[in-house]
Amino acid sequence: MKVSATLMPTLKEAPAEAEIPSHILMVRGGYLRKVAAGVYSFLPLGWRVVQKISRIVREEMNRSGASEVFLPAVIPAELWKESGRWDHYGAQLLRFKDRKQGEFVIGPTHEEVIVDLVRGDLKSYRQLPLNLYQIQTKFRDELRPRAGLMRGREFIMKDAYSFHSNEEDAHREYRNMFDTYCRIFARCGLAFRAVEADTGAIGGSLSHEFQVLAETGEDAIVACDHCDYAANVEEANVRKVEVAAPSAVALAEVQTPKARTIEEVSAFLKVQPNELVKTLVCLVDGVPVAVLVRGDREMNEIKVKRALGAQEVVLANDRAVLEATNAPLGFAGPVGLKIPVHMDQEVAAMASFIAGANKADAHVTNVVAGRDFKAASTGDFRQAAVGDNCPRCAEGIFKGFRGIEVGHVFFLGTKYSAPMKCNFLDTDGKEKPAIMGCYGIGVTRIAAAAIEQNHDADGIVWPVPIAPFEVHLLSLASNDAAVVQACNDLYKQLNDACVEVLYDDRDERPGSKFKDSDLIGLPYRMAIGKKGLAEGIVEIKARTSAEVIKVPLTEAVAWVKERVERERLGTAAQGTK
Amino acid sequence: MKVSATLMPTLKEAPAEAEIPSHILMVRGGYLRKVAAGVYSFLPLGWRVVQKISRIVREEMNRSGASEVFLPAVIPAELWKESGRWDHYGAQLLRFKDRKQGEFVIGPTHEEVIVDLVRGDLKSYRQLPLNLYQIQTKFRDELRPRAGLMRGREFIMKDAYSFHSNEEDAHREYRNMFDTYCRIFARCGLAFRAVEADTGAIGGSLSHEFQVLAETGEDAIVACDHCDYAANVEEANVRKVEVAAPSAVALAEVQTPKARTIEEVSAFLKVQPNELVKTLVCLVDGVPVAVLVRGDREMNEIKVKRALGAQEVVLANDRAVLEATNAPLGFAGPVGLKIPVHMDQEVAAMASFIAGANKADAHVTNVVAGRDFKAASTGDFRQAAVGDNCPRCAEGIFKGFRGIEVGHVFFLGTKYSAPMKCNFLDTDGKEKPAIMGCYGIGVTRIAAAAIEQNHDADGIVWPVPIAPFEVHLLSLASNDAAVVQACNDLYKQLNDACVEVLYDDRDERPGSKFKDSDLIGLPYRMAIGKKGLAEGIVEIKARTSAEVIKVPLTEAVAWVKERVERERLGTAAQGTK
Repeated sequence: MKVSATLMPTLKEAPAEAEIPSHILMVRGGYLRKVAAGVYSFLPLGWRVVQKISRIVREEMNRSGASEVFLPAVIPAELWKESGRWDHYGAQLLRFKDRKQGEFVIGPTHEEVIVDLVRGDLKSYRQLPLNLYQIQTKFRDELRPRAGLMRGREFIMKDAYSFHSNEEDAHREYRNMFDTYCRIFARCGLAFRAVEADTGAIGGSLSHEFQVLAETGEDAIVACDHCDYAANVEEANVRKVEVAAPSAVALAEVQTPKARTIEEVSAFLKVQPNELVKTLVCLVDGVPVAVLVRGDREMNEIKVKRALGAQEVVLANDRAVLEATNAPLGFAGPVGLKIPVHMDQEVAAMASFIAGANKADAHVTNVVAGRDFKAASTGDFRQAAVGDNCPRCAEGIFKGFRGIEVGHVFFLGTKYSAPMKCNFLDTDGKEKPAIMGCYGIGVTRIAAAAIEQNHDADGIVWPVPIAPFEVHLLSLASNDAAVVQACNDLYKQLNDACVEVLYDDRDERPGSKFKDSDLIGLPYRMAIGKKGLAEGIVEIKARTSAEVIKVPLTEAVAWVKERVERERLGTAAQGTK
Repeated sequence: MKVSATLMPTLKEAPAEAEIPSHILMVRGGYLRKVAAGVYSFLPLGWRVVQKISRIVREEMNRSGASEVFLPAVIPAELWKESGRWDHYGAQLLRFKDRKQGEFVIGPTHEEVIVDLVRGDLKSYRQLPLNLYQIQTKFRDELRPRAGLMRGREFIMKDAYSFHSNEEDAHREYRNMFDTYCRIFARCGLAFRAVEADTGAIGGSLSHEFQVLAETGEDAIVACDHCDYAANVEEANVRKVEVAAPSAVALAEVQTPKARTIEEVSAFLKVQPNELVKTLVCLVDGVPVAVLVRGDREMNEIKVKRALGAQEVVLANDRAVLEATNAPLGFAGPVGLKIPVHMDQEVAAMASFIAGANKADAHVTNVVAGRDFKAASTGDFRQAAVGDNCPRCAEGIFKGFRGIEVGHVFFLGTKYSAPMKCNFLDTDGKEKPAIMGCYGIGVTRIAAAAIEQNHDADGIVWPVPIAPFEVHLLSLASNDAAVVQACNDLYKQLNDACVEVLYDDRDERPGSKFKDSDLIGLPYRMAIGKKGLAEGIVEIKARTSAEVIKVPLTEAVAWVKERVERERLGTAAQGTK
């Protein structure tokens, strides 16, 4: 493609609202323009990236045995009422009425539609298994759309839904999708990790996230440095700890004037934070309970929620703490507390600890669980942390990463098929709801995540498989007939050799073309100027390297084609572990 | 693809609401399922058809020099207010508010968004011309969605918009798009005609429709049997007629008791309808005028509207006719009429004619235009008709066709660029609005139109280029190991030869497989049964023929590959004239 014949406007400055590299660079590089908050137009360069990602996704989904369908964006409200999500999905669900006052939503996800489609034609176990996917524009009315494609309102997603006659087969397909996703992200040329994840609002009982590793990532991940285990920090398990023999020293109250936080108390008492215990008063579905974690730990609300089978866990405010403990915030402790106490396993394992005394400016020391208070339950209630022992292997220690979630696989079970009666007749003649899985990939988000992972101070550094073009051909003297002719010839030769080439044929200064080229970030730059042409050479530079290589004009196409073809396959090994 | 591994449910009956062949056959054949009125899910077979059409469209648009972009479906209302269409587009425009009460529409077309995109980066004539297109899901809230994909609410469209620094260049691109569209429809394997068309709500001054020819088409087309001229009947010009010498016979009143219609009057007076003149009282933007057309002709409201520069032309009701003519409906005539009279050129050319007398039960004969009444204007006010002389060539006669509009090209001028200030700095240093064209193709509608043109009593008869698969392989004995093996081998060989094959590997009776195969309508059916296998042959049948051909197993792949490859290119010659 010739730059002169299309719309590729580069900018010196990004809009003030653009804060993260991918957003800034996609706007500056002429990939993206904003239409409304979280709603963007893709310019030719940007759309080529999305199409390349889509093609990889499509090829690997087809290879996995899934079939592509296309479901409507506009969905009647009845289907969402049937699944129950009309009431539970919240304000992200964009609802509207048509001219006849019929209620509709713009699909943020398509479980309801696919279940409705399949139940209409599903009769027998012989029609199963089935895996149907689509690549489609979705809309989620985010409260604070931000970060360009990273958290937009309108975005493109690949969503797949599988249907099975038994759990075993559903697990087989879950693994099939897991492997397919690994192939997809590797073929995109990205460093990523598959991590165990919370099932969130989609529901179900087993789930993995696929995280593109990048310092700017929103998600914290811990991963074992020895075995395969990795998880979102919100989900990561911790190793079971050895229980110490309880202390025989009696409980004692100490004055701790104005010392409320772990830091203040440990400084005042000259002890380590891990000798203290935090007593966190929470409202669990509105009912106050206390959760104990060691002083150097953070409570994990998701784990508490799951352990207590609750819908909602929130920290109590000052008044509720005062009501539950008879003390101001900062002095809660398990001894004598009237509300149920749930204790992290690490607390249960301590010989004794220091906690609040449930009165102002006082703590108690030598607290022994079981002796000085009775816990309603003991479990894993804390956030995992970097440096933790791995729960899956004996040797490993958790390392920390930042990641951007680009894919998510869920084992759904019958969460949608049971209420919506997506049933089949099984071999035993009985009608049963299909067992389901669902599998999503953020197609447009991959583009942004790839840039977060691959950029430098000058611009984007695209991995070959998803670069909008593979080669950036620059004519450095557009008013010199010989240079123009040489560039035109090279452009034709590259196209004939099936190398994707963007040809900057504009009448601009070389300096400006080099700047644009770094910003746009194609893998290889080939520049022809008067001097080089006189010597019979092309100056080639890989975007990943500072080195400029002089290649004879006659060898240039073969030189670049060989490298590009090798890199088109992606980088399966990199960063998957 | 194996039928057993995907969702291809065929039905014996279509839903009662399905009335036209494409709707009935796409539902029965497992291509499509309804989600809401005018809103459908595409099953794997249906989506493959859409993808094949999209690929042809994309390849030809890219070849034409256009660049693909992707604009959002959700559009802020401000852009539509700026163009003025927020007020004029009517109830088809789906409007909604987001969670922050911002007003939005779901895009039914994207002139506003593209103009906003281009104006943001357009500075100089050097950036022009530019042609940007997308393939996207649109939504139009039709009052009466019907006929499946033919007039749905959610549908897929290819829309392109070009920008130019002068009219000449815009016309060059209009022609480029015209030629590109001809290539697209020919490559789809469709018989079609490009016809001159009304510009309708999009506006602008030049427009062609691309009509797929089919008896069930909504649009009436007339086309010259000698030259290239073809037009929607609402738009077709008529040849200028020779003016006859006016009659010298005096006006005379005749009694015509209860004879109101052309048929009644001509029967009563024993004259031909073409000796009579119809006097049609219309309200032109609310003001009554009379339009005269020959008794055997129909008035064309679009031509009247355009000639009189009106927004609206409607036939007057009985009371308005009585008020304007002092006579009941059926007896209006131009003689003595107080309202302006606009006369079709054919009427002006008559030596004399018979018309209403503006009193009940009476007509006047020997009416001579100019002598007995004065017309406010003379022009082409009638609908063209089959049998008319061609207005462009001396020899041609109009033939009639029915068509389905699948594409439309418009010369827009500055209709959007001027109000929205999409300006550039021209060579003369002056700021000017870009000259625009816009070009649409109904991608999903092509699928339906192709079926309307290509089906029989048993099912669809796909043209090869847009068939979901090229070959339907039927195993006629799924419990016979040798037959299954032979089918599996053939399936692999066909895939290896890059022939697109759908493999019916289900455990069903041969009769049911043959029925499904005819219904689904793939171009070639290959069936292997016990008997054939014993003889070493495959039975091959083209969907377009009744003949079953026995081909040796060893030659079957080559046999079908040769035919399929030839037909993949489409049928450029057929029906384009």
